Amino acid sequence: MKPLRIGIIGYGFMGRAHSNAYRKVTNFFDLEYHPVLQAACARDEGKVKAFAERWGYASIETDWRKLIARDDIDVIDIAVPNNLHAEMAIAAAKAGKMILCEKPLGFNAKDAEKMTAAVEKAKVANMVWYNYRRCPAVVLAKQLIDEGKLGRIFHYRANFLQDWTISADLPQGGAALWRLDVKAAGSGVTGDLLAHCIDTALWLNGGIKDVNAMTETFIKERKHNLTGKVEKVGIDDACAFLCHFNNGSLGLFESTRYARGHKALYTFEVNGEHASLKWDLHDLHRLQWFDHRDPGIVRGWRSIHVSDGDQPYMKNWWVPGLQIGYEHSFVHQVADFLKGLETGTPARPNFRDGLATDYVVDAILASAKSKKWTKVKQVK
Amino acid sequence: MKPLRIGIIGYGFMGRAHSNAYRKVTNFFDLEYHPVLQAACARDEGKVKAFAERWGYASIETDWRKLIARDDIDVIDIAVPNNLHAEMAIAAAKAGKMILCEKPLGFNAKDAEKMTAAVEKAKVANMVWYNYRRCPAVVLAKQLIDEGKLGRIFHYRANFLQDWTISADLPQGGAALWRLDVKAAGSGVTGDLLAHCIDTALWLNGGIKDVNAMTETFIKERKHNLTGKVEKVGIDDACAFLCHFNNGSLGLFESTRYARGHKALYTFEVNGEHASLKWDLHDLHRLQWFDHRDPGIVRGWRSIHVSDGDQPYMKNWWVPGLQIGYEHSFVHQVADFLKGLETGTPARPNFRDGLATDYVVDAILASAKSKKWTKVKQVK
Amino acid sequence: MKPLRIGIIGYGFMGRAHSNAYRKVTNFFDLEYHPVLQAACARDEGKVKAFAERWGYASIETDWRKLIARDDIDVIDIAVPNNLHAEMAIAAAKAGKMILCEKPLGFNAKDAEKMTAAVEKAKVANMVWYNYRRCPAVVLAKQLIDEGKLGRIFHYRANFLQDWTISADLPQGGAALWRLDVKAAGSGVTGDLLAHCIDTALWLNGGIKDVNAMTETFIKERKHNLTGKVEKVGIDDACAFLCHFNNGSLGLFESTRYARGHKALYTFEVNGEHASLKWDLHDLHRLQWFDHRDPGIVRGWRSIHVSDGDQPYMKNWWVPGLQIGYEHSFVHQVADFLKGLETGTPARPNFRDGLATDYVVDAILASAKSKKWTKVKQVK
Amino acid sequence: MKPLRIGIIGYGFMGRAHSNAYRKVTNFFDLEYHPVLQAACARDEGKVKAFAERWGYASIETDWRKLIARDDIDVIDIAVPNNLHAEMAIAAAKAGKMILCEKPLGFNAKDAEKMTAAVEKAKVANMVWYNYRRCPAVVLAKQLIDEGKLGRIFHYRANFLQDWTISADLPQGGAALWRLDVKAAGSGVTGDLLAHCIDTALWLNGGIKDVNAMTETFIKERKHNLTGKVEKVGIDDACAFLCHFNNGSLGLFESTRYARGHKALYTFEVNGEHASLKWDLHDLHRLQWFDHRDPGIVRGWRSIHVSDGDQPYMKNWWVPGLQIGYEHSFVHQVADFLKGLETGTPARPNFRDGLATDYVVDAILASAKSKKWTKVKQVK
Repeated sequence: MKPLRIGIIGYGFMGRAHSNAYRKVTNFFDLEYHPVLQAACARDEGKVKAFAERWGYASIETDWRKLIARDDIDVIDIAVPNNLHAEMAIAAAKAGKMILCEKPLGFNAKDAEKMTAAVEKAKVANMVWYNYRRCPAVVLAKQLIDEGKLGRIFHYRANFLQDWTISADLPQGGAALWRLDVKAAGSGVTGDLLAHCIDTALWLNGGIKDVNAMTETFIKERKHNLTGKVEKVGIDDACAFLCHFNNGSLGLFESTRYARGHKALYTFEVNGEHASLKWDLHDLHRLQWFDHRDPGIVRGWRSIHVSDGDQPYMKNWWVPGLQIGYEHSFVHQVADFLKGLETGTPARPNFRDGLATDYVVDAILASAKSKKWTKVKQVK
Repeated sequence: MKPLRIGIIGYGFMGRAHSNAYRKVTNFFDLEYHPVLQAACARDEGKVKAFAERWGYASIETDWRKLIARDDIDVIDIAVPNNLHAEMAIAAAKAGKMILCEKPLGFNAKDAEKMTAAVEKAKVANMVWYNYRRCPAVVLAKQLIDEGKLGRIFHYRANFLQDWTISADLPQGGAALWRLDVKAAGSGVTGDLLAHCIDTALWLNGGIKDVNAMTETFIKERKHNLTGKVEKVGIDDACAFLCHFNNGSLGLFESTRYARGHKALYTFEVNGEHASLKWDLHDLHRLQWFDHRDPGIVRGWRSIHVSDGDQPYMKNWWVPGLQIGYEHSFVHQVADFLKGLETGTPARPNFRDGLATDYVVDAILASAKSKKWTKVKQVK
Repeated sequence: MKPLRIGIIGYGFMGRAHSNAYRKVTNFFDLEYHPVLQAACARDEGKVKAFAERWGYASIETDWRKLIARDDIDVIDIAVPNNLHAEMAIAAAKAGKMILCEKPLGFNAKDAEKMTAAVEKAKVANMVWYNYRRCPAVVLAKQLIDEGKLGRIFHYRANFLQDWTISADLPQGGAALWRLDVKAAGSGVTGDLLAHCIDTALWLNGGIKDVNAMTETFIKERKHNLTGKVEKVGIDDACAFLCHFNNGSLGLFESTRYARGHKALYTFEVNGEHASLKWDLHDLHRLQWFDHRDPGIVRGWRSIHVSDGDQPYMKNWWVPGLQIGYEHSFVHQVADFLKGLETGTPARPNFRDGLATDYVVDAILASAKSKKWTKVKQVK
Repeated sequence: MKPLRIGIIGYGFMGRAHSNAYRKVTNFFDLEYHPVLQAACARDEGKVKAFAERWGYASIETDWRKLIARDDIDVIDIAVPNNLHAEMAIAAAKAGKMILCEKPLGFNAKDAEKMTAAVEKAKVANMVWYNYRRCPAVVLAKQLIDEGKLGRIFHYRANFLQDWTISADLPQGGAALWRLDVKAAGSGVTGDLLAHCIDTALWLNGGIKDVNAMTETFIKERKHNLTGKVEKVGIDDACAFLCHFNNGSLGLFESTRYARGHKALYTFEVNGEHASLKWDLHDLHRLQWFDHRDPGIVRGWRSIHVSDGDQPYMKNWWVPGLQIGYEHSFVHQVADFLKGLETGTPARPNFRDGLATDYVVDAILASAKSKKWTKVKQVK
């Protein structure tokens, strides 16, 4: 058993999700490396103290540079707004720390390039928290595609629909609302939600060649929580784009925070020559599967309840029929990261994968501005 | 092309459903016999005239005995309340007419025995309108069971849930409400709704050995539409029963008109050793199918959209993906009846099959009264 | 009762659907005008004879010009490939006939403009067979939107997904396959399937300002049934487009015949400030409805089984819970057309509405070619 | 913060589920009492050592009597086969320990009576692990019923369907298979699965007056893992029963391990005068809700995604739209138990509630044997 000492920056929604994963992973997975909750870091001393106490972090820091400088930390976990990722990650890499960084990797692709260069130069283990890759049903989709069960792919479509910002009274910026502040987030749904859809798509269906996007900001001005003034809204409330994948299939993506009735409906569907599959975050423990090779009279979409021991990750949990939830995707990501250290085959998505997504995000935003088809820069 | 001259008795809900079937069947099916709408019969002259005009019946009668006596009628269609079936059917048989009788066959099994004896003695074609046997998805279920795809059957369960009589203000008896009058209907949900469930069950899973039932009348008194007085309610509002099938499987049936939210939810499910299937009248164009022989990681319930040319009856309709509805089950029943005349292999359920269901209905009502397990009389 | 004498051109899939509607409509709807099946017309005498006999047309023609010239015909029903619509419709208008024309109205918008001018000049009743407007659930959606139940609309998205042309062995052109022949169809999924989606969208959500489209032909060459040679495929197999509606909402549309597992999955979803709704042709008797005004703890998508007497068209059919199917949308369209003659308020979509859809179709095809955002010409 | 020292007996499926709950509860809930994993106990020293190490128990015992005798233990958690519950619980009560006992409470009702008497005499906190009461959707159902939203209840129906014992090759008894050994389990699906259904039903719909049951053992003989011999199977493979609730509603329950296609499908449905609700363990994060008070044209079953902060327990977890799973029901149960200690209002189901369920279980087994309606003994 080897301890792996974690220093986390940020105590918000993601700080909680990561901490829960570190605490649980060795109860359910057999691993050589065991996470140790060494330190939690944030500017607000009272809050970080409470957070550390609740989750069992052994110490706190209020200056992230001090955290990075500590000898007793192996991994820096970056769980803060997007505009802070690059500086922290580059410093951590220089200090020789492994890095687990929240998504999207950079504030933009330029930042992400620097971050990728930094970790590759420093040769430190690195990963981006695109957790949805680790939902068992999504891994099952990957497995079916990789086995060639779908044949030639014709279509890939994905949505990420929410409805929480419809009210014009909601302010922008500050604390839990930093995602609405373009200075902290970089963009709206594109970097926040579509980034998830793109990461999954690149993983399942390969690279994207070019994109053609449209964005919209429905509520043009909102009170800004930090300045207290009504200010122009800089983020995109909605974004949709057409694209071509390198494998010749067509892509169609949409995200919005104005789709009444959908809380966090991330769905994707892949149509192949022989079979198709669909997934939906609101019922994340299921995969929809259609196999044209079934006998004609009994062909139909199967709703697979992904909870059996022979399905991805599930032998580590309960018994067939008993579902796991959102948080488990993070547990799986930590398990795979640790296994990667153990086996020498690093888990992914690494920073270079995160950069690939950021290239697509940048191309989307550029296309929405220029109103033209835009080529996507490819990672090597 | 041979004309088959129909004389229908009754112009209500079923009178319409049958008439529509007679009118459409040869547009969609290639048949030697063609129904001719020769006469409609009912006591109310004005109403039967309007009905005949709307549906294209060539003549009317107000006395059913006259209708039966006519030489230009080949088939008597009995679409009137249950208490009238026996007398009409027996007279029609004696007159040598073919008979299509609404379900349940008799007011009780004793009546049904006489009716069956009458048609068998007269050697006239006979059929009972258990139309749900002709929904394509139900026929597909039958086909899968008969091919042995389910293996040994362990469980059969069926429900028929409605909610239209919950209001205590609803009167009983008269016109469209005769189903609430025990003198016209014989029983409540048992003969009306469970009879459908039982007919399908006997067809799909074979005979029922014994039953153990419970009935309930939630609203004890209602105004009677014919007498104008508040009277004791004689029908059962709800009925549930346990049973053993002759093949060793267990059965569980329930019907009620007090299940808020269900308009006409007839569902059945059959669980076999290797596979299971489910059907639901609210989405009657679909069959749910689970096949344990599918590879473990992609096992799941398939929702089969029964609308392809290789699925029962569907090559006669539109193109794949375009659903048919309730009324088509009657068209199919007429098509099969006509085909039976053509081929010499009579379509079913015939009166003897209807009698089998009435034996189960009688046993259920007896068991509910005696509160004991009750043997079901078997047809030979 | 006034007879309305129909002369139909074409005996294919649509010829059957229309004929069925004419035959049934007065059985279920109370109408002053009654369709009379006067004549069926097609070049192949044997086939049109058989068709006329099956459906009860009183006579046949093999030359459509003769049909149009007949005095005993009130309505010309055009149910032939797209490239023949304009000539027939313009001639029929000149002859003073009412016209019911299959969709899309013209082979292109230019044709449609001429057709619209012709019927408006001749002042003859005219309608386009966009039948999905008449599914009860779609009408219910229209009613909810028009009552303002959704509030400001943010998003409209629609799909029409099929999978029947995936095989490379399928030939193009001729008989039932004319939809695959660009010379007969004008385009592929765009004019065939997206035209339906656009018609519904214009009706529910108003005009479209501009579009940005991508098309694809996956199988580049196919044997042509008419020439017997392998030829370049001219139609689009798939088409997706982004758009802005005049009301400020965003649109996203996609159609393909390469989405394995979907037979004819036409879906649309509308997201408004207060409520959202969804519909799906594979379960056309249901409407999905989310109302944010419901109490927070019990908010959810409702699956409305549109089969009650107070829901559009349904009091004319059976009883609650018993669904109707695809063909009934045509019956409703005929009922509304006849009612329009009776009341003097013509039913729609008329040719001008059909022209509006053709303008969008043309803009889509132009945008796919130019790879640019393209303005949509608006009808006055 | 007050420590509550746990001594757990058993390291199987339930041992893991409870341990996980103890470890997580204070990360997500604000509580005065904090569980401390003090000791794990089981006969197999190697296994209990490994278990203790994995979950962080500070010590181990191999004799449960020693565990109970320890001064540093506050709570005894009984997570062993049913035949061992009574002796352990009575001893623990005598030793003044709080007791959390797995379900069903007793091997039979007689045992359960003694256990209840013991804890009530000793005045120790006590609870039974009927965890499904704590699924947020089930709690929401309880809340809606208690608020009177359903009005008078007419029907309650529940199923617990599994398919894991269909193979005749599966042995009975020993280790993970003790549920198949009548000597360890007492009964088959009745005590294992129906007990869950009954506990929920008593909670939601009040007491059961009488029952009428049927049981079946499909595979009559199996190899016994402990003796190595083929022996008669003593458990029931399937059980269904009719019942009357004290409030006048009818109940229908069924459980089996022979329903191919269902892994652990626990469902219940309650039909009331004004509204109905349904729940299903395979999608435990959803509640189906039908409210007849909705306007007629938009009535339908709502699928409520129970993941909002105003829904039971959910403000303690993630953000709307992100589901929790099976294990969280145990976390909630621990949270409520601890809160009960804090507030002085004990959480339930306590032993007396568990006894009520055992009375129903006993009546079911008696009725299945006698083939008669059987009165259920009521708890005071």
